[in-house]
Amino acid sequence: MPDNVRIAIDAMGGDHGPSVVLPGAELALIRHPDTEFLIFGDQAAVGPVLDTLPKLKARATFIHTEVSIRMDDKPSQALRYGRHKSSMWLAIDAVKKGQADVAVSAGNTGALMAMSRFHLKMMEGIDRPAIAGLWPTLKGESVVLDVGASIGADEVHLVKLAIMGGAMARIMFDIERPTVGLLNIGVEEVKGLDQVREAGRILREGNFREFDYQGFVEGDDIGKGTVDVVVTEGFAGNIALKTAEGTARQFAQYLRSAMNRTWMARLGYLLSRQAFQTLREKMDPRKSNGGVFLGLNGVVIKSHGGADAEGFAAAVDMGYDMIRYELLSKIGQSMARDLQARASAEAVAEPVASGVAS
Amino acid sequence: MPDNVRIAIDAMGGDHGPSVVLPGAELALIRHPDTEFLIFGDQAAVGPVLDTLPKLKARATFIHTEVSIRMDDKPSQALRYGRHKSSMWLAIDAVKKGQADVAVSAGNTGALMAMSRFHLKMMEGIDRPAIAGLWPTLKGESVVLDVGASIGADEVHLVKLAIMGGAMARIMFDIERPTVGLLNIGVEEVKGLDQVREAGRILREGNFREFDYQGFVEGDDIGKGTVDVVVTEGFAGNIALKTAEGTARQFAQYLRSAMNRTWMARLGYLLSRQAFQTLREKMDPRKSNGGVFLGLNGVVIKSHGGADAEGFAAAVDMGYDMIRYELLSKIGQSMARDLQARASAEAVAEPVASGVAS
Repeated sequence: MPDNVRIAIDAMGGDHGPSVVLPGAELALIRHPDTEFLIFGDQAAVGPVLDTLPKLKARATFIHTEVSIRMDDKPSQALRYGRHKSSMWLAIDAVKKGQADVAVSAGNTGALMAMSRFHLKMMEGIDRPAIAGLWPTLKGESVVLDVGASIGADEVHLVKLAIMGGAMARIMFDIERPTVGLLNIGVEEVKGLDQVREAGRILREGNFREFDYQGFVEGDDIGKGTVDVVVTEGFAGNIALKTAEGTARQFAQYLRSAMNRTWMARLGYLLSRQAFQTLREKMDPRKSNGGVFLGLNGVVIKSHGGADAEGFAAAVDMGYDMIRYELLSKIGQSMARDLQARASAEAVAEPVASGVAS
Repeated sequence: MPDNVRIAIDAMGGDHGPSVVLPGAELALIRHPDTEFLIFGDQAAVGPVLDTLPKLKARATFIHTEVSIRMDDKPSQALRYGRHKSSMWLAIDAVKKGQADVAVSAGNTGALMAMSRFHLKMMEGIDRPAIAGLWPTLKGESVVLDVGASIGADEVHLVKLAIMGGAMARIMFDIERPTVGLLNIGVEEVKGLDQVREAGRILREGNFREFDYQGFVEGDDIGKGTVDVVVTEGFAGNIALKTAEGTARQFAQYLRSAMNRTWMARLGYLLSRQAFQTLREKMDPRKSNGGVFLGLNGVVIKSHGGADAEGFAAAVDMGYDMIRYELLSKIGQSMARDLQARASAEAVAEPVASGVAS
């Protein structure tokens, strides 16, 4: 690993483009001075913003790009017009070529995933990518995956999600053997989708040394922090994530209007200002902004398209951590160990099975 | 419809049994004096509690049952030992025989659904049941279904969920033509599961007069109240529901600890007490307790197993409303009208199609 973490930024992504992305990158740089940036974007849009951010400018190389990926194009369209020349593609390309350690974009999720997959290719042993998010919980944070990379998952993919999520949790939370749960609609063994039940069986019976499988968890276990890693397929995971975001906003809205209703409540609010500030920070979705694309030969971070500078900075921070703590090699090691454990378990099981059959 | 709403109660269901269920029924009775009860349960457990509730006792007929369904049995087990003689079965049986208008139970969801389906049978035109819940939103409340009756749904079932949910929303919210959205992981037409996309096409192109289809919605639209009815299959719906419950509890916990941190915050809390009370009521999951089983020839309400008396009362209230406002006949009418509309649309489309083919 180089001395500095080298971060490729797609400056044109997100609802606000360079005006949010670049100040966000500078915030992250201030927190992690051992960072340098490759910034891809349109000179006319990026130049003026970069001129107002001297700290970032001093640590950045700017590369002009003609093409920007639109937020609502289909992945296939984006690949057609954006390959080889868009800011998004070139940020990923920098990772591919080893010029950067990680790419960060707030752009079109589908396009970013399609380009990452097309260009970086999947890691050995992984067939489909996943997006992992950090979820604030009553105990701290948990890794939740997949929150929307692919729809549906068979039992083998769910087990690989557990392996990848376990590796990410080891890095993010610095725990030797994180706990893992499978998201289901009831904790009884009888419930749920066949593939979830089957994945549960493999995880329970397998000898996974890198994480500690705890069984099924339900939707309300995510916020409780019952396990360090919550594994689910992308459709349900995305719905869970957005439903939680919606509920948090709803609660904040109720609280605001309750506190404005009477002068006594307003006075109480003034006295409790500091406490409300703590609460706001706890529930701030910007603090946990950033989805990590897992399963690729390279690290790509997706920031929420509507993120502000603080939110984008959190996504850059996450990319920084993934590189500093060597996510890819840890996933690779976990995969290798777990595959080995499964292979030797099968080798032991084989003679017994044929003994029974004969 | 009889003058009184006749409610069959499974007194043995839930985590607490008669000690919660019966006081809950009495609370509901006080709110709706035009109610009478059939109470099914074990004399030894029910008798002493009923003696402490003279208002309820005066309006109730008690029927002793030997068998109670356990909370964690499989539906098939429950059907085997509980058919014809458990408190749960007999409450449903009272609806079947016309002795009661609605059955309410806080018992084992899978068993309650299996027995209801087995005994009451599905409505004409509906193949699979659904559980519909009321979801508090920033605009009021929405109907969300299916929150866990069955896993997976093809496009035809999703359309029927829209029809049933629309009928329920007309009753609950007293709106002529409720808005309906399909839960998906992106609002663009290109995203999501095939069956969700196909259901979207049918709902968009169909001439559904009973509701107004608004397209795809995402997880965070539920809490916003973007539509009156959110349609999804049971796995994702259950995960969304429980995730929202978990997030609400998480927020409440953060708020409590923030308000206890300093004496100033505590003083502020005292002054804002009334506002906090309003907030608590807004977010109180007990207020929206109760899932309606839809698609059956009879009305069955499932209360949360862990509900307290207030929560159980909310489930009974919901049953009362469903009967007073004639849920079943409204669903039947909506189904008939919508099927008619689709049939005539096909009749119009047919000659054109064969014209093209010839």
